[in-house]
Amino acid sequence: MITEHALLEVIPGREDAFVESMAAAKALIAGSTGFVSLRVERCVERPNCFLLLVEWERLEDHTQGFRGSPAYEEWRAALHHFYDPFPVVEHFEAVVTA
Amino acid sequence: MITEHALLEVIPGREDAFVESMAAAKALIAGSTGFVSLRVERCVERPNCFLLLVEWERLEDHTQGFRGSPAYEEWRAALHHFYDPFPVVEHFEAVVTA
Repeated sequence: MITEHALLEVIPGREDAFVESMAAAKALIAGSTGFVSLRVERCVERPNCFLLLVEWERLEDHTQGFRGSPAYEEWRAALHHFYDPFPVVEHFEAVVTA
Repeated sequence: MITEHALLEVIPGREDAFVESMAAAKALIAGSTGFVSLRVERCVERPNCFLLLVEWERLEDHTQGFRGSPAYEEWRAALHHFYDPFPVVEHFEAVVTA
């Protein structure tokens, strides 16, 4: 299992529109091969910052499968214009849980 | 439910010792009032970077309860010397899930 992680800095004033667009766009990613779960969470201390966590069965399900799909083009068109700066996306694997 | 989030930059070469210390220290946080879950995940692209996600029932369970407890002093002594720079810790609340 792999966690895709990004901190999304949304242009101030566009937060509600971003949440609406994400709620509509989530079906694009949820239908992708290897998708496990998605969580988008809003920051208490910086309300224009959102945490994106997507669990994938394998790294390639995100980096090759989803990013190489037509659904990703729709996802990008729906969401990327909200971000400034463009987020750093990295991948993580669990080492300790409780 | 609140998610505590931090990206932990561990001094290069100290990663294995950090993981061992975290595995031993997790009982300190898991016994705190309002604790729900903990995940520590290692970054694929930057192996000295770790994602810390702790779920709490309420924000105050972390900011007042755990941080004000004797267990936090032990947690700090066990773990904080691995970090450079000292991490930014923020809190998030879910807005979209799938």
